[in-house]
Amino acid sequence: MISNEQIQDHNSGRLQLHNHSWDHLSAQLQEQGHSVNELVRKIAGFQVAVPSWALGTGGTRFGRFPAGGEPRSLEEKIADVGLIHALNRSSNSISLHIPWDIPRDTAAVKDLLNAHQLVIDSVNSNTFQDQKDQEFSYKFGSLCHTRPEVRKQAIDHNIRVAEIGARLGAECKTLTIWLADGSNFPGQHHFRRAYERTLDSLKAIYAGIPADWTTLVEYKPYEPHFYSMIIPDWGTSYSLCQQTGDRAQVLVDLGHHLPNTNIEQIVARLMHFGRLGGFHFNGSMYGDDDLTTGSIKPYQLFLIFNELVQGMDDPAVRNPDLAWMIDASHNTKDPVEDLLQSVQAIKTAYAKALLVDTEALFEAQEANEVVKAEEIVRAAFETDVRPLVAESRLQAGGALDPLAFFGENGIRRRLIEERGRYAVATGL
Amino acid sequence: MISNEQIQDHNSGRLQLHNHSWDHLSAQLQEQGHSVNELVRKIAGFQVAVPSWALGTGGTRFGRFPAGGEPRSLEEKIADVGLIHALNRSSNSISLHIPWDIPRDTAAVKDLLNAHQLVIDSVNSNTFQDQKDQEFSYKFGSLCHTRPEVRKQAIDHNIRVAEIGARLGAECKTLTIWLADGSNFPGQHHFRRAYERTLDSLKAIYAGIPADWTTLVEYKPYEPHFYSMIIPDWGTSYSLCQQTGDRAQVLVDLGHHLPNTNIEQIVARLMHFGRLGGFHFNGSMYGDDDLTTGSIKPYQLFLIFNELVQGMDDPAVRNPDLAWMIDASHNTKDPVEDLLQSVQAIKTAYAKALLVDTEALFEAQEANEVVKAEEIVRAAFETDVRPLVAESRLQAGGALDPLAFFGENGIRRRLIEERGRYAVATGL
Amino acid sequence: MISNEQIQDHNSGRLQLHNHSWDHLSAQLQEQGHSVNELVRKIAGFQVAVPSWALGTGGTRFGRFPAGGEPRSLEEKIADVGLIHALNRSSNSISLHIPWDIPRDTAAVKDLLNAHQLVIDSVNSNTFQDQKDQEFSYKFGSLCHTRPEVRKQAIDHNIRVAEIGARLGAECKTLTIWLADGSNFPGQHHFRRAYERTLDSLKAIYAGIPADWTTLVEYKPYEPHFYSMIIPDWGTSYSLCQQTGDRAQVLVDLGHHLPNTNIEQIVARLMHFGRLGGFHFNGSMYGDDDLTTGSIKPYQLFLIFNELVQGMDDPAVRNPDLAWMIDASHNTKDPVEDLLQSVQAIKTAYAKALLVDTEALFEAQEANEVVKAEEIVRAAFETDVRPLVAESRLQAGGALDPLAFFGENGIRRRLIEERGRYAVATGL
Amino acid sequence: MISNEQIQDHNSGRLQLHNHSWDHLSAQLQEQGHSVNELVRKIAGFQVAVPSWALGTGGTRFGRFPAGGEPRSLEEKIADVGLIHALNRSSNSISLHIPWDIPRDTAAVKDLLNAHQLVIDSVNSNTFQDQKDQEFSYKFGSLCHTRPEVRKQAIDHNIRVAEIGARLGAECKTLTIWLADGSNFPGQHHFRRAYERTLDSLKAIYAGIPADWTTLVEYKPYEPHFYSMIIPDWGTSYSLCQQTGDRAQVLVDLGHHLPNTNIEQIVARLMHFGRLGGFHFNGSMYGDDDLTTGSIKPYQLFLIFNELVQGMDDPAVRNPDLAWMIDASHNTKDPVEDLLQSVQAIKTAYAKALLVDTEALFEAQEANEVVKAEEIVRAAFETDVRPLVAESRLQAGGALDPLAFFGENGIRRRLIEERGRYAVATGL
Repeated sequence: MISNEQIQDHNSGRLQLHNHSWDHLSAQLQEQGHSVNELVRKIAGFQVAVPSWALGTGGTRFGRFPAGGEPRSLEEKIADVGLIHALNRSSNSISLHIPWDIPRDTAAVKDLLNAHQLVIDSVNSNTFQDQKDQEFSYKFGSLCHTRPEVRKQAIDHNIRVAEIGARLGAECKTLTIWLADGSNFPGQHHFRRAYERTLDSLKAIYAGIPADWTTLVEYKPYEPHFYSMIIPDWGTSYSLCQQTGDRAQVLVDLGHHLPNTNIEQIVARLMHFGRLGGFHFNGSMYGDDDLTTGSIKPYQLFLIFNELVQGMDDPAVRNPDLAWMIDASHNTKDPVEDLLQSVQAIKTAYAKALLVDTEALFEAQEANEVVKAEEIVRAAFETDVRPLVAESRLQAGGALDPLAFFGENGIRRRLIEERGRYAVATGL
Repeated sequence: MISNEQIQDHNSGRLQLHNHSWDHLSAQLQEQGHSVNELVRKIAGFQVAVPSWALGTGGTRFGRFPAGGEPRSLEEKIADVGLIHALNRSSNSISLHIPWDIPRDTAAVKDLLNAHQLVIDSVNSNTFQDQKDQEFSYKFGSLCHTRPEVRKQAIDHNIRVAEIGARLGAECKTLTIWLADGSNFPGQHHFRRAYERTLDSLKAIYAGIPADWTTLVEYKPYEPHFYSMIIPDWGTSYSLCQQTGDRAQVLVDLGHHLPNTNIEQIVARLMHFGRLGGFHFNGSMYGDDDLTTGSIKPYQLFLIFNELVQGMDDPAVRNPDLAWMIDASHNTKDPVEDLLQSVQAIKTAYAKALLVDTEALFEAQEANEVVKAEEIVRAAFETDVRPLVAESRLQAGGALDPLAFFGENGIRRRLIEERGRYAVATGL
Repeated sequence: MISNEQIQDHNSGRLQLHNHSWDHLSAQLQEQGHSVNELVRKIAGFQVAVPSWALGTGGTRFGRFPAGGEPRSLEEKIADVGLIHALNRSSNSISLHIPWDIPRDTAAVKDLLNAHQLVIDSVNSNTFQDQKDQEFSYKFGSLCHTRPEVRKQAIDHNIRVAEIGARLGAECKTLTIWLADGSNFPGQHHFRRAYERTLDSLKAIYAGIPADWTTLVEYKPYEPHFYSMIIPDWGTSYSLCQQTGDRAQVLVDLGHHLPNTNIEQIVARLMHFGRLGGFHFNGSMYGDDDLTTGSIKPYQLFLIFNELVQGMDDPAVRNPDLAWMIDASHNTKDPVEDLLQSVQAIKTAYAKALLVDTEALFEAQEANEVVKAEEIVRAAFETDVRPLVAESRLQAGGALDPLAFFGENGIRRRLIEERGRYAVATGL
Repeated sequence: MISNEQIQDHNSGRLQLHNHSWDHLSAQLQEQGHSVNELVRKIAGFQVAVPSWALGTGGTRFGRFPAGGEPRSLEEKIADVGLIHALNRSSNSISLHIPWDIPRDTAAVKDLLNAHQLVIDSVNSNTFQDQKDQEFSYKFGSLCHTRPEVRKQAIDHNIRVAEIGARLGAECKTLTIWLADGSNFPGQHHFRRAYERTLDSLKAIYAGIPADWTTLVEYKPYEPHFYSMIIPDWGTSYSLCQQTGDRAQVLVDLGHHLPNTNIEQIVARLMHFGRLGGFHFNGSMYGDDDLTTGSIKPYQLFLIFNELVQGMDDPAVRNPDLAWMIDASHNTKDPVEDLLQSVQAIKTAYAKALLVDTEALFEAQEANEVVKAEEIVRAAFETDVRPLVAESRLQAGGALDPLAFFGENGIRRRLIEERGRYAVATGL
């Protein structure tokens, strides 16, 4: 665990340079009419959950190149998130993936979470792989399977996942369902019946979990199936949620769209319907690439946050609070570094979105002043908000440069020494 | 106008060869348990409307290369569709495009339609271009426009379009709305407000047209706007229809999808919801290419028809009757030839879909016998149904080879002589 | 091993029905001027190699659902291909993947190949995964790596792979290089230097393998890297081959293209340059989906064969003989069934391409008679060639219905009994 | 024409704010080791040509919504570019489009150019439309046409275009060929012959224009043809240039790529080959959308400039000087405003690319320090370079805020008064 002293040591050497930049930026923002304290407060308060599966080196079907020192247990995963949170003060929660993250000693896990100032924010079921002790295979589907006993097994698994989550703390009230069900060949699926079976299964899960829990329903156009996915697009996810209940909500994963999709418009649509439940952040150039968030299309990420900020600020929008999560894989980067970069990119996009002069923007939109509207949005994006994000991290007790801290302190080397060169994260 | 004698002359020379093939195929189909008469009856009965705008040479923003002899008036457009229908007996109706197809003499037009055994099946509004006498411009939108007076103008236009259609015959009870509204740049649109304004406009149109009319709402991801379209996907279209009324239905245009979309699944989805109102057939490799139907992805066209046939045959599906229309542009082909090819491709796909052994397919699907299910579907596709489609045309009084008839009789040459080398179809 | 008697038993029950269809089709083809014997001969002679890695159940990064009975050794892989070849008489060769398929007893392997009437046609290197005993990791590339010692290791591996192949028979004169090298993030690669290093490595391999060997250089736009691949497109592959030598040739994998690519045009281009060396067949809807060949876009497959047949028949084209290979993964189908379907689809496309009336086609092309040219191509595609493909298989001693044979004889069940339910194919 | 006094008036009110920002940024850049004067000099010197066709309101095949005041002649187009250049001091040249921009009085045009401190930098031929007086139609192609007389007409046109350019000044030594030739349907083109005819035509043009001229060969995957384009990708363009001559070079248009293409890698590739001749800048979300440059993917634009700057700075790269041009259409924006925004986006990307610490980057690349390499690139992108671009404009005599100047001085209103509300730019 990283001590406050270490953080302060790190910061002290960087403070002068930071203050210089921050003084200039904060003056500039105040001139533009922003409340600098309010900005810092909002950005510091923005927390993004880290999924337990993102702490090991991921890979592709072609191979995996682990860097070593991966967390071998739930406890070590918590330690890694604790490390990240100590550095950036922005990752105070974890998304668990069941069956891998089932705690052996619930009380001890809760203590460990407390020690790291972390909570479990949500739990994720897994019906896209077969576990050793499993009675029925999910090869041909889970919630959409033609056989009722397979569906029941998948429904029960989801309900059990929620139970495990509930035991880990009152903050955990979200079940995320990524349904990998689909078909690889024309003719394989009866589309209408498969949809109806999926809906029935979702209703059964919804009825089986606590009444104050939210069910997040993810969509994805392809992979692991390459002809059809049972929930390929937001429209399908939305229609399922409509029929399931108020606390059934759509989850948007940035990598789960066909080429050229305008994702920010989907975000606006779902908020307008009050059905945007959460986000999986990652970066994407081709498909579900699971790259570092913001590494490929930072402007798109900003435009998405622009919609989110406007939607959250608009009293006419009756969307529930959102679950913010990272969902990425790490093939060539250290997972901790990748997560630190992702959080930085998310906060950068959020900070820039907060700078948009929405009043002037709405006026330009009403008047169809296209150039003006675009320039307003663009001005926020062009602003260098690194000092603002750093200041908010500083005030929250984090490190001015988390990446540098991680590297300079040889943390990966120490993790390898402790856990071994060939430690493999559970679930990978 | 083509006489029955001409058709019979044409057919007589081809009959022997046709009969030989048909005898073989019909024997084969009967062995497989099909009722050949029923197949012929269904295929002969399948009618696809021709849109009035498809009778001239289209083009792209880069240029237009007309072949000459284009119809200069509604009357000449009717004559062209009459010609097509006389040859293929499958295009007994026309989709009108207002303002270009406003009849000067309604009674005369109705007589002309009767003479050609045609009806008007639907009317299409146009709010994506400015007309000379128009008070407000649609440059920044029509049904979604920020100014109420512009929206009102667009709503009134739609209602008037329905009135014009209603006057032309009792068969016309469908208003097709393709809404080109959208934005070209980030910031230009307030997505949520633009959606809400569009919904209000659609409701006003719905309330303003006769109670037994259907409103078809088309979606399209891009073009003519290149950042966002107000109705980019089926999910948006569906949500608008849900809130507008039972007779608001989604129209699927085959070219209006992002790359790699599984369109057949969308078709199944919408039929399952009872919200598939109609089809715009065309061929597409990249986007809204508006090529000849089936010219690029004939297997996809067949798979779509497979869903349509299954949906229409399933008593559990409560989808209304669909409006079948071609919507294509003709850059390098004679428009009449292109339309004849399109109808042939549509009927081929329909005929093959009728051959699918659905009982065996559903069994294989239930049992997750993937290879078997695929082979059943594929067997229907591999069948050479050209004799079946020809036989159904023959029995309906059409030509055995409409394309050959058109070419051999020098019809385009005669149209050019009659209408001129540089005649330009109204609306182009 | 399957005996001729078993094949004849199988065929005898199906012969009457087949002959009936074949009589009709062959008469029809003769009427059209085709030499039926020539067609049968060509189709029977067309052989497609099976890659050793395609005999197990593949999967995605999300999981794998093996059906059991997978080949546990090179010998069992040969047995599986032998089985396929016995049934379809079209898969007389195997592509090996080193390091997994290194024979322990070369003489014994050669005897086994002889017994199954098989040859090794090509060998594939693997520098996209780290092997246990490997000195340097390929995490950051192999042939493009910044460190010369890593490149040397990868070069040496490729040369050794060719040596292994050469020992297995004189027919093996092809080294296939799929280079997974690439980068996941902007800034990671110095594009120009990485290209130059790759070129140098290719030259070294080319110089290190026997002088009569062909080097096939594959391209792929993404996966396993998601920002850039060192050889993303045919242009890069072609430029590398140009600089490497005459026997460096481009390999086209059908799944390795960006959305909407016109692959048949690339095929024509490369043949025109004399640089098309080989093919990896598979089916694709979204990316490198590795589905059954022809399962998604059969018309495209046919159009590709149309170019291949025209190129092979044209004396002006100085392209070498091509290496035909399947490269697919099998997630939800039995691998053997999948391969049988793939070969059937390939032969179907080839047979249809042979039916194209090229003389008339070229005339129509010269005269810009677009409709006529398209109808000529389409007529070949619409023809039901299943009896033709079956007849060519029959005459070659294969089964009339390989899939049915495989299923009815419970072959998978027997493989599971022999090899075990959880046998995993080496290399997976 | 805008006077220096007007510019100075405009600047004086903004100078204090600008100086404040610039002082801060220049100090920061100096701390990082940059020569601020050198940066300003380079950015000020970067000039982007405006194409004559971009001065009117473009549109799509669905319609056009002109704002009025469009230039009705070459002289008025020069005036518009002169206005842009007076404001941004970065657009000192024009790309002409023949046949529309043929000067009636060459000497007068040259005087006018001089008065505006402008030159003609390149000329563009047009063989994608038929002109009234044209003997042969380009409906079925121009340089690739099957008939030699059509090809000759197109070749002669290209040569004549170069002659017209040569007469307008010694700076004009570039002929840009965008070849719209292609096919809409399978079977239409004989791919290999069409390629060979195209190559012959290019060679004839190359031989027919002055020996010191450069021929730029553009590629585009689709539109206006939707099955195949004769030059669909950089590989085809490159192969044609290789066979044509040293001064045949590839032109990259940012909108001419399939979805998800890594354009920056293509840029690096072509520079490495010494074959990157020029650029058409525009913005793109779906295809050849021709939006404002940088409006959709500013990070990609920066990454492209990163490759350009590295390539131009590397003595090992023997690429000729590049032709920088904007090629956009303006559907919903004022063309002049759109062009001002595009130039600003280009200069922003260029300025940021100049800030990349290439020495550190190359070190990180060599060491495969992925995170570090990415952070170096990203740091440059995150920098707010607006003061730097403004300062370079200021020092060159331009306006601090060209867009504001254009709006506040009511220039469009004055152009409408002068040229009329319905003036249509020649060529649209």
